[in-house]
Amino acid sequence: MFTFGNKIRLQLFGQSHSPSMGAVLDGFPSGIAIDQEKLAAFMERRAPGRDEFSTKRREADRVEFVSGVANRSDGTGDTANENAVMLTTGAPICMVIHNEDTRSGDYDRLRFIPRPSHADYPAFARFGEARDHRGGGEFSGRLTAPLCAAGFLCLEVLRQKGVEIGAHISSVGPCEDDRFDPLAPQLHIPKEKPFPVLNDEQGANMQEIIRAARASADSIGGSIECAITGVPAGAGGTSFGSLEGLLSLAMFAIPAVKGVEFGSGFAGTQMRGSENNDPYRVDGDRIVTSSNHAGGILGGLATGMPILFRVAVKPTASIGREQDSVSLPEKRNVSLQIVGRHDPCIVQRAVPVVEAAAAVAMLDILL
Amino acid sequence: MFTFGNKIRLQLFGQSHSPSMGAVLDGFPSGIAIDQEKLAAFMERRAPGRDEFSTKRREADRVEFVSGVANRSDGTGDTANENAVMLTTGAPICMVIHNEDTRSGDYDRLRFIPRPSHADYPAFARFGEARDHRGGGEFSGRLTAPLCAAGFLCLEVLRQKGVEIGAHISSVGPCEDDRFDPLAPQLHIPKEKPFPVLNDEQGANMQEIIRAARASADSIGGSIECAITGVPAGAGGTSFGSLEGLLSLAMFAIPAVKGVEFGSGFAGTQMRGSENNDPYRVDGDRIVTSSNHAGGILGGLATGMPILFRVAVKPTASIGREQDSVSLPEKRNVSLQIVGRHDPCIVQRAVPVVEAAAAVAMLDILL
Amino acid sequence: MFTFGNKIRLQLFGQSHSPSMGAVLDGFPSGIAIDQEKLAAFMERRAPGRDEFSTKRREADRVEFVSGVANRSDGTGDTANENAVMLTTGAPICMVIHNEDTRSGDYDRLRFIPRPSHADYPAFARFGEARDHRGGGEFSGRLTAPLCAAGFLCLEVLRQKGVEIGAHISSVGPCEDDRFDPLAPQLHIPKEKPFPVLNDEQGANMQEIIRAARASADSIGGSIECAITGVPAGAGGTSFGSLEGLLSLAMFAIPAVKGVEFGSGFAGTQMRGSENNDPYRVDGDRIVTSSNHAGGILGGLATGMPILFRVAVKPTASIGREQDSVSLPEKRNVSLQIVGRHDPCIVQRAVPVVEAAAAVAMLDILL
Amino acid sequence: MFTFGNKIRLQLFGQSHSPSMGAVLDGFPSGIAIDQEKLAAFMERRAPGRDEFSTKRREADRVEFVSGVANRSDGTGDTANENAVMLTTGAPICMVIHNEDTRSGDYDRLRFIPRPSHADYPAFARFGEARDHRGGGEFSGRLTAPLCAAGFLCLEVLRQKGVEIGAHISSVGPCEDDRFDPLAPQLHIPKEKPFPVLNDEQGANMQEIIRAARASADSIGGSIECAITGVPAGAGGTSFGSLEGLLSLAMFAIPAVKGVEFGSGFAGTQMRGSENNDPYRVDGDRIVTSSNHAGGILGGLATGMPILFRVAVKPTASIGREQDSVSLPEKRNVSLQIVGRHDPCIVQRAVPVVEAAAAVAMLDILL
Repeated sequence: MFTFGNKIRLQLFGQSHSPSMGAVLDGFPSGIAIDQEKLAAFMERRAPGRDEFSTKRREADRVEFVSGVANRSDGTGDTANENAVMLTTGAPICMVIHNEDTRSGDYDRLRFIPRPSHADYPAFARFGEARDHRGGGEFSGRLTAPLCAAGFLCLEVLRQKGVEIGAHISSVGPCEDDRFDPLAPQLHIPKEKPFPVLNDEQGANMQEIIRAARASADSIGGSIECAITGVPAGAGGTSFGSLEGLLSLAMFAIPAVKGVEFGSGFAGTQMRGSENNDPYRVDGDRIVTSSNHAGGILGGLATGMPILFRVAVKPTASIGREQDSVSLPEKRNVSLQIVGRHDPCIVQRAVPVVEAAAAVAMLDILL
Repeated sequence: MFTFGNKIRLQLFGQSHSPSMGAVLDGFPSGIAIDQEKLAAFMERRAPGRDEFSTKRREADRVEFVSGVANRSDGTGDTANENAVMLTTGAPICMVIHNEDTRSGDYDRLRFIPRPSHADYPAFARFGEARDHRGGGEFSGRLTAPLCAAGFLCLEVLRQKGVEIGAHISSVGPCEDDRFDPLAPQLHIPKEKPFPVLNDEQGANMQEIIRAARASADSIGGSIECAITGVPAGAGGTSFGSLEGLLSLAMFAIPAVKGVEFGSGFAGTQMRGSENNDPYRVDGDRIVTSSNHAGGILGGLATGMPILFRVAVKPTASIGREQDSVSLPEKRNVSLQIVGRHDPCIVQRAVPVVEAAAAVAMLDILL
Repeated sequence: MFTFGNKIRLQLFGQSHSPSMGAVLDGFPSGIAIDQEKLAAFMERRAPGRDEFSTKRREADRVEFVSGVANRSDGTGDTANENAVMLTTGAPICMVIHNEDTRSGDYDRLRFIPRPSHADYPAFARFGEARDHRGGGEFSGRLTAPLCAAGFLCLEVLRQKGVEIGAHISSVGPCEDDRFDPLAPQLHIPKEKPFPVLNDEQGANMQEIIRAARASADSIGGSIECAITGVPAGAGGTSFGSLEGLLSLAMFAIPAVKGVEFGSGFAGTQMRGSENNDPYRVDGDRIVTSSNHAGGILGGLATGMPILFRVAVKPTASIGREQDSVSLPEKRNVSLQIVGRHDPCIVQRAVPVVEAAAAVAMLDILL
Repeated sequence: MFTFGNKIRLQLFGQSHSPSMGAVLDGFPSGIAIDQEKLAAFMERRAPGRDEFSTKRREADRVEFVSGVANRSDGTGDTANENAVMLTTGAPICMVIHNEDTRSGDYDRLRFIPRPSHADYPAFARFGEARDHRGGGEFSGRLTAPLCAAGFLCLEVLRQKGVEIGAHISSVGPCEDDRFDPLAPQLHIPKEKPFPVLNDEQGANMQEIIRAARASADSIGGSIECAITGVPAGAGGTSFGSLEGLLSLAMFAIPAVKGVEFGSGFAGTQMRGSENNDPYRVDGDRIVTSSNHAGGILGGLATGMPILFRVAVKPTASIGREQDSVSLPEKRNVSLQIVGRHDPCIVQRAVPVVEAAAAVAMLDILL
């Protein structure tokens, strides 16, 4: 299902080559002002065709509001005036993004030959011949555009509650960025950069790794670290409603994400309790911890310290090299070479998507 | 919330020191026979006080059926006859496990002094003084006992559908077990062992590591690998309903789990696409992949290959060493030494819990 | 929330005067052919401005498919060719209907003066000044247009499962139509009529009642009977998941519905058990009941007999007469006269909406 | 499913003849004191065997708390001391009620002969021979005992929010009680009476009607009116989340309920808009309506006026007269005479159940 949330409901729709894609956000608070310039800037961080590493597909990714907002500057509700202040009304907000630069013909020969490590084969097994194979259909990374639009709106409300979210590339291949300060993450540093890292030297190395992969008609994976500040102690949920569980559910909706870890995560499994435990101390009026191996979450609930997690992004499945596949109707082995426009690495473009998905989950938890 | 599922609903209840704990399983199929001996053997794999490494708390962890089952051997439905065949009736199944060996007094001094890296502090922030602090209350690992009972029932139904689930310790501290064969995981090897590993030599090393931690009044973390076979291609869900997302939601309900990765997971982020992609080939009547870096999941849907994932288990938070904490009512720094009965490592006991949680998630998906 | 369903998810969006309204249907089966002419005919049954009794607002109510369908006649998936066969793909289906004949100016003076028995006042209390007051915003009966489009798709799948749904006006004011034969409801008779009743003589009387209401600048209520055939015995759900409960949840999403009764309903409260009970008998291979006071539902589950229910539709709240109201910002009593285009009776237009809402609920139950 | 709610989750379990029945209430606020005497008094209003009209089955219906509460008077959390103040802890609250006076033998001959207008036949179609047929299994009215226990707890929290709920018998057969004052319902009058009506003269007539039904080995139906005061304007939900829809979902979980109407309901369908509309006026600081045909709900949201609804309760299906049925395995017509202990009318016992179910729904909405 392309739906998320309990108190708010997000519904995504669209396919890579459908006329449009979009998102409906239901249960969203009324009276929230939408700054369309800031929204466009947020969308731009994810948009394709913007740098040397991303697919050559060019999409404006302009977000059009179909419902749930009204122009309040003149009291009429008319949204035609582009300079007007747009406010959410409390009704479901439908946002639409048009798909313009589609080349469906590229995919005709792939209709029955699943691309390795894409969703093509299980999608065929589930939906049969009627499924939309063009560009990966509804499994395409294109669907993260409306997710970003929805996430941007959620980020606005969270900001009003004192909650901020930021992410950065934490690794590309074997090359690692610095980590956020776990007690005071520097959320805004990566946001202002075209290649969102903390340490630009490592960023340059990462870009070399991506160029090398591209030069070999190959791709490379990486990871993203995300931090959330301002979540009050005790927020979240227990057991099957844990912060870890709900954030993971949102993260795994991002194509190519294959792992999630909180705080010290997998590295923490090699630690002793005396190293991994976070001692408490009083800091003025607040209870804080001296370290943050818990990633700001204990028992599924926020500790009041920054929430920290990392997601694993697999190497882009679409590569230019010849690969083994099968022709589905006749069950015959074939050799496949994917042509078309692909990213040698999607980690940098996934950074705002991780922020957006985290924002949707956190707003649902904190409303 | 202590509830999980859409088609089935699991509801856990109980606290570490409440008279009983339990689980209600609603929407469960009727006519499933429950073998109480096999259930007891499954519970025994998780039960405390069974080996040198686990807490000295002794609990029989006998599962009592309160509703949803009936003795069908004599047609009356009476369940008093212990030798009778017990069948599920289609009504919600309530199972109860008694807490017997509680020493609540041990916890009185901890009521307002949160133990580092336990849920004590966020739980206090959320629920206030009324919360049940004894033994960690509802955040205790004790709650995994009713989860196991529910998981056992789900495993029975899955088995009838051709789906099998198995897990093993994949690491303790820096010491790693072999991995499952990703194309044909050896599910049954670890199940028959008191210390569930594939490679007994590594198992012996792990036990040394645990003994060393205990000798230092400390604890150690580890990881668990789980495999699920027999899931048909196309099963699962897309986007926010992905197999990865739903399995993660279930995993993070297990106390101490801090990370989940599928297939090549975080290691895959260092690979190139040409290494990480799983080529297809025809195998008789089936479409298979030659490798399984995807962990049996693409686009949230099953590929038909074994589902493989690993969870990170943090070192037990309760350690015998002195730690820094705070006294909550007065917001004052204090030093804390935890007495009581604790496991230096819980990874081995968490193995059947991972199987149980995976079974609940998979039955909800496959019903 | 404008969302419904568990196995499928319906999400409505739009306001009376937003540029468009629509519906997203997620989890819908793939490979279902959509006959656009039949869809247009179904929409026409609800559309405004079609007869002497409905609002003069003219809307084409053409359903545009944004996602989730593909043209399969030429294998490309392109939906531009209007003559092509359109199949659902398994992706979320987004349908959009444009609002064309809006006269928002009519509503400017109503922004702070709630119309009696409309949602204006509670909506203002909930969403504040930012809400979209024009034409009732998201509370408008206009939103039943996308509900009909979604219901039409569900009806197609239900038909393939042998389930049929039909409704008719069962009363307007005090004038009652005949009832469906409870053992074999005549579903198709009312569908072919512009004024959907079983008994045309009563239909003529009802139309006189509506004309009289309109002549007095007033409105009139009525009721609708709906029948569902082909539901297998045992389908549905128990307790909080009963067929009655889920159908009611869907019915109360239709503006102006204020009551739902199943089978003998409120009339049955005056009966004795010996009258109201439905005796069983064997009919060939089937178990049937000789009467159907249960309306085809016992214990929340289908009996295998036709499901029968009736909904109460209140008189249209918009009337031309002067009414007492208040000016909200200053909390001052005012007199209000509503101008604009309104239906003296909406019961006839609500008949396909009841069928559509029932179809959505039944598909969610029977998938 | 025996589960309800979004913000809270109620899970019922048990069958008429299982050792115990119960309820788990998850997501319930912490720190709520439970007055066990008031709880017992509330349970007593529903309990069987208390007056001349109810089944002779005697059950103490004592509510035992298994989890989620702690004795806070001595700081230890121990609940053994019966005089202690019991507080909710924030953990799931499991309450158990024992079934004591079961006579399962009475039901042996009914295992394959469905009682007309009971759930026996559809339950058999759904769950097969494994279902628990004794006393109606999980479809029994007995399950309303744990629903009452859960509702009592919800009523306590609602009271702290200024929300009160009360119900009374509004009819038995053709005999009607007075209606609540729709602007100021007299909630407390019926609560203090063994036969909960507003007008005792009509109450005496109703009792005559019940005695007459019993004398003819028959039963009689009736209706219940319920009012909810103190709900703030704007509370509730739109479309598929309407107050009407959610209250109905809860009401139809009560066995024998076959209809729900809000405000003027079905009677309102005979009115003109000018009669049924509720004019607004200013009353001091508040906006009120002069009449309340809307039953306190417009657009699914509360108007701030009392919420009013009525439920139809069918005549008890179990009657002493001979009825036609079938023997299921052989599909043969048979004649059936039900022996055992049954209520000639259950309307009076259902009054607190309606209050309890309404309380669960309202707490879920208002938390």
